[in-house]
Amino acid sequence: MKALMPAPIHPIDVILHKRNGQPLSDAEIQAFVQAGVDRTMTEAQIAAFLMAVYFQGLNPAELAALTKAMRFSGETFDATPLKTFTVDKHSTGGVGDKTSLLIAPILAAAGLAAPTPEGVPGICVPMISGRSLGHTGGTLDKLETIPGFDTQLSMPRFEQVLRQCGAALIGQTPRLVPADRILYGLRDHTGTVESPYLITASIMSKKLAESLNALVLDVKVGSGAFMPTYALSKQLAELMVATGEREGTRTVALLTSMEEPLGRFSGNWCEVRECVDIMKQDRHPMSADLIRLSNTLAGWMLYLADHADTPVTGAALADEILTCGAAFEAFLEIVQAQGGDISHFEGEANPADFHQPAATTQLLAETSGYLSSMDCKEVGWAVQRLGAGRLKPGDPVSAAAGIEIHAKLGDRIQSGQPLVTLFADTEAQLAEPLAMLRATYKITPEPPTLHPMIREIIVKKD
Amino acid sequence: MKALMPAPIHPIDVILHKRNGQPLSDAEIQAFVQAGVDRTMTEAQIAAFLMAVYFQGLNPAELAALTKAMRFSGETFDATPLKTFTVDKHSTGGVGDKTSLLIAPILAAAGLAAPTPEGVPGICVPMISGRSLGHTGGTLDKLETIPGFDTQLSMPRFEQVLRQCGAALIGQTPRLVPADRILYGLRDHTGTVESPYLITASIMSKKLAESLNALVLDVKVGSGAFMPTYALSKQLAELMVATGEREGTRTVALLTSMEEPLGRFSGNWCEVRECVDIMKQDRHPMSADLIRLSNTLAGWMLYLADHADTPVTGAALADEILTCGAAFEAFLEIVQAQGGDISHFEGEANPADFHQPAATTQLLAETSGYLSSMDCKEVGWAVQRLGAGRLKPGDPVSAAAGIEIHAKLGDRIQSGQPLVTLFADTEAQLAEPLAMLRATYKITPEPPTLHPMIREIIVKKD
Repeated sequence: MKALMPAPIHPIDVILHKRNGQPLSDAEIQAFVQAGVDRTMTEAQIAAFLMAVYFQGLNPAELAALTKAMRFSGETFDATPLKTFTVDKHSTGGVGDKTSLLIAPILAAAGLAAPTPEGVPGICVPMISGRSLGHTGGTLDKLETIPGFDTQLSMPRFEQVLRQCGAALIGQTPRLVPADRILYGLRDHTGTVESPYLITASIMSKKLAESLNALVLDVKVGSGAFMPTYALSKQLAELMVATGEREGTRTVALLTSMEEPLGRFSGNWCEVRECVDIMKQDRHPMSADLIRLSNTLAGWMLYLADHADTPVTGAALADEILTCGAAFEAFLEIVQAQGGDISHFEGEANPADFHQPAATTQLLAETSGYLSSMDCKEVGWAVQRLGAGRLKPGDPVSAAAGIEIHAKLGDRIQSGQPLVTLFADTEAQLAEPLAMLRATYKITPEPPTLHPMIREIIVKKD
Repeated sequence: MKALMPAPIHPIDVILHKRNGQPLSDAEIQAFVQAGVDRTMTEAQIAAFLMAVYFQGLNPAELAALTKAMRFSGETFDATPLKTFTVDKHSTGGVGDKTSLLIAPILAAAGLAAPTPEGVPGICVPMISGRSLGHTGGTLDKLETIPGFDTQLSMPRFEQVLRQCGAALIGQTPRLVPADRILYGLRDHTGTVESPYLITASIMSKKLAESLNALVLDVKVGSGAFMPTYALSKQLAELMVATGEREGTRTVALLTSMEEPLGRFSGNWCEVRECVDIMKQDRHPMSADLIRLSNTLAGWMLYLADHADTPVTGAALADEILTCGAAFEAFLEIVQAQGGDISHFEGEANPADFHQPAATTQLLAETSGYLSSMDCKEVGWAVQRLGAGRLKPGDPVSAAAGIEIHAKLGDRIQSGQPLVTLFADTEAQLAEPLAMLRATYKITPEPPTLHPMIREIIVKKD
């Protein structure tokens, strides 16, 4: 029998089917992504398709097919030779969110303590992270404040660090998931960023390209979250969980509150410093929420990796790994393996002495009462304006700039007490962020009603 | 007081506002069209905007602003110096629809009979027409079968012919409404052709660029129409009427039946011949529907131009102009003014002797009964395949190819009688169109229920 040649797929038909609400086949989606990468489809056609998806959405099969086609559009990281359990965490982006800097060492320490018969850590975290953009910070920018730290490892070197340390933290390479770079570049200037379907495909194609056995997603809700409503954040979480599970990766999403900066600091070096302090058993009260969230996320990862019976015992194990110093040891190993200078962390060295800001000022409370609310996104923008973030990809960021938080939502405030300390490289950079923070920090006579840190947990629907 | 500088308008914001269903300002739409023509906006952005319009539509003010911005995106025809009444007819495209070839001479004759004090015809028809595409014919392709006929007049020459003859029929120039060319080119390959809003802006920007006092629209419904449903045709008619009236052009739309080819012939030269026969008082029974529709449309034009008290008396006047020979005289004048050879029309010359087809065949009835239905679009495609039409802009067309209709819907049919005669330039071109026609011509024992020719008339809502 003669093999049947499949009919050729034309981009215009894929656009029309989506526009008209007809389900797309895997082959149609695969052809569309391929044509985008090969440049055999015009950017106008990609843009029209993306806008049609914005309005019509994607059914579960379409979303899985789009994610898969994007995931395999270029190079991927193949963890099979490691014969270990790979797990990662991804956050949709927040202010002061430095959980990756704690979670990677915690999981690495757990993995190093339980090596495979081949001598590889029993858990590996192949973490491909992002940079600061807009009101949110980026793990790579924080790590690069450590002198020498190299976030641009080749795939073979990435695998080596994983074998040795149980975790490695690198940036996106141009050859990894090129379809996402093409689609994201177009979405950004054609008004198609906010589709939960396209966000899911973008995030999940990159995460699944890490060859993961399990993935824990931290989906932010509240005034500092990218998604404008709780319902949209929840929809995004559900789509990502369904897509990950469909591709064989155990996926859990936590909807977590982002109504104020997480932890004590928001910036770059100061966030590294906060994590090192925690790992060195110096737990500042303002870091309590950060420690709790990191342990909760790490607990889910340990549970999925079968290193804990429940997520709750996993969180307890994570805290133990933090307090016993094992996480700090793993952190120093990772930093050294990636070329970083650990002299500011070791022995009696105090990281607070490094990257000292040239200019500081404080936001003082103008009245007494309770710290009741803020627009957390606005706080993130203030941090960006101080020099810690970037408006557009490629902008430089300051290592020293940032803020220190002196009060959390719900705290009793005395008139005149400091609420925030601001750091920048020049005095001139302080005024506008100070005014932004002053405008958004609200003190009221009555204490506010606050949301719990963990709002909801999304697991696979049976 | 300092003049307020308007805030700059960014294409991305225009896309986002439309995507989110927020009304666009005139300035936003103007900036969008300008950026498209100036190429300061990417094609991807235009495509994303067009797809957003497909889903969100345009409110009346937005549609008028888009039409206006497109209309004035390049050169326009300015009829003001003529100090006359300008009127045109536009059809959404049909099979065998040659009403323009009758209506332009009828109106020209009426205008020539009632000159202005400055000696210009009291009515002028500045008709900018299109070419055959897909299943529909094009006025320019028909006229160009007349040796020497020039459809590419300059604007000054166009005005001269109007002054002299009361009508001129030319093609779109590259400088006329360039925004439509840009947008249409993109719509065609990004799946955004079928939006009634974008169709309205495309048609009305070009028609209003003719500087019209009045416009009569022939919006086809039925199996030969571009719009797939009656409701969409009606929506398009209402949008076009509202948009024309908003711009100060008296606009009326007739929803007319396109369930079978209009008149006796469908093709290029054969359609010119049919009109000349009619204008020379040789009224073939198969031309009855064509004559009726032409007179009805011309009647509305004469009524709007104040040359008739009602559209009905206008139609009677049109028929009188046809039968008294005045339309034929005007036709010969127009053809000569545009460089055409009238030797095949004059005196004893029979246009049937010119452009004789090299190959013919006939579709014969295989059974007796009533001609009850056909897919009129399929008939149009058969005419295209015979060589009379084109698949894509720029393809050549045959002067001689086409079909002659021997039976109309509802006619009693005897088995073996000819239903259609097919003409082509080569025998090889006959087989496929013959099979297409055979498949779509349906004969049934009972007579069909037929729609009236004029289904509905759309005038401005008060």
